[in-house]
Amino acid sequence: MIQVFKIGGNVVDNPVMLNGFLKDFAKIPGPKVLVHGGGVMASQMQKALGMSPLMIQGRRVTDEETLKVVTMVYAGWCNKRISALLQANGCNAIGLTGADGNAICARRRPPVDIDGQMIDYGFVGDVKPEGVNTAFLKSLLSQEIVPVLCAINHDGQGNLLNTNADTIASSVAIALGEGTQLIYCFEKDGVLADKDDDSSVIPHISKDEFEKLKAEGIIADGMIPKLENAFKAIKAGVEKVIIKHARNILNERGTILK
Amino acid sequence: MIQVFKIGGNVVDNPVMLNGFLKDFAKIPGPKVLVHGGGVMASQMQKALGMSPLMIQGRRVTDEETLKVVTMVYAGWCNKRISALLQANGCNAIGLTGADGNAICARRRPPVDIDGQMIDYGFVGDVKPEGVNTAFLKSLLSQEIVPVLCAINHDGQGNLLNTNADTIASSVAIALGEGTQLIYCFEKDGVLADKDDDSSVIPHISKDEFEKLKAEGIIADGMIPKLENAFKAIKAGVEKVIIKHARNILNERGTILK
Repeated sequence: MIQVFKIGGNVVDNPVMLNGFLKDFAKIPGPKVLVHGGGVMASQMQKALGMSPLMIQGRRVTDEETLKVVTMVYAGWCNKRISALLQANGCNAIGLTGADGNAICARRRPPVDIDGQMIDYGFVGDVKPEGVNTAFLKSLLSQEIVPVLCAINHDGQGNLLNTNADTIASSVAIALGEGTQLIYCFEKDGVLADKDDDSSVIPHISKDEFEKLKAEGIIADGMIPKLENAFKAIKAGVEKVIIKHARNILNERGTILK
Repeated sequence: MIQVFKIGGNVVDNPVMLNGFLKDFAKIPGPKVLVHGGGVMASQMQKALGMSPLMIQGRRVTDEETLKVVTMVYAGWCNKRISALLQANGCNAIGLTGADGNAICARRRPPVDIDGQMIDYGFVGDVKPEGVNTAFLKSLLSQEIVPVLCAINHDGQGNLLNTNADTIASSVAIALGEGTQLIYCFEKDGVLADKDDDSSVIPHISKDEFEKLKAEGIIADGMIPKLENAFKAIKAGVEKVIIKHARNILNERGTILK
């Protein structure tokens, strides 16, 4: 069974949380993949360079200068720091973008209609159908090498493309085939029945229960696209999706979607 | 026969020269490795962030903030742009730091005495004896995957270390064993008898001839450490070292050291 873990920018940006997570991640036996974001640090670096980060519906508009910054931050600083820390914990990590070993091929997103306005996200890509190079990833896993993927892919034409890390994680989990598990790690204990009460974790949610909780307004805001994405992955063959705190990957706490 | 190519920061920073080089590099048959610098762009990025690059005897003093910048520029922007461009030219490149797959382990350089002053270069490393993971590199080469190494290594303790790219190239060539060739590519046609005359390339130089040319002042300045490094590699088993223009890798022009 392959496990695909995803950590977001808030975890990557917090040295204590990141170190704790990586120590635990290194201990997990069997084949595993890590996908990480880094959006918090990319925005900080944009500001340090006098740029103004522009987000539309939670996604970064990525012009040429922004692409340079996100590639530097995600594929350079975040990805390599994670590789070095995992190596120090005895985990033979290899940090990759989609361009490396042609791991993931994406296509540039065409302009999209948002509230009647055509928005060009720039150098932003979506993973191509059949875009995940499973032969390459499985060859690394069979050598006990752990792929660490950042949110940068390529289009096969020489262009790098900024790609949502949640989607990379679900695309990779789907491509790796049946029995793969997908674990989204963030800074909450799971899906909460009461968003202000960390002890209100809902332990299991089926697709039908999700629709009910959504209709009742218990699951709302940013959690909706996250869970919709998760149920898509399950429909496409992922065994289960777990949503949990980055500090809990060695225990059972969290929400299991099935 | 394995060929290890090295390109410097001046080539990486020049889009026309870089694209031309990568198109040619993609055509070279057989197992090959690319090592690249990026110092010009790292200094630009330091300045854009309000930092002052500090070089002592041609080497960058690398404090924590500088390490972040060189990692972002070398391992992020330069390395990933090269991976994507090689992929577009049909060459299955994989961009790596020493931390990735534990490719190269370095040790932090202790403070050194320069003209009576102890200089601490900070997060700067020298490749450890036996520090090159030849089994990993040869496993990639046997799968027709082309390692693209930037000038960032790790110490196995979780630290990234800035490492001279010329030295990485010669360490890798030596470690890959007998019959390996090392090709230094830069923006001159080779070792020149008259530094102002590009047509004065010396086609072959032996160790004895090098000593003579050095004593006569014909080989001077920055070329001396480059050639000393090259003859060390030859003494350690590298078949030959070639110094040539980055535009000439598909032809015979250049200086062969043997």
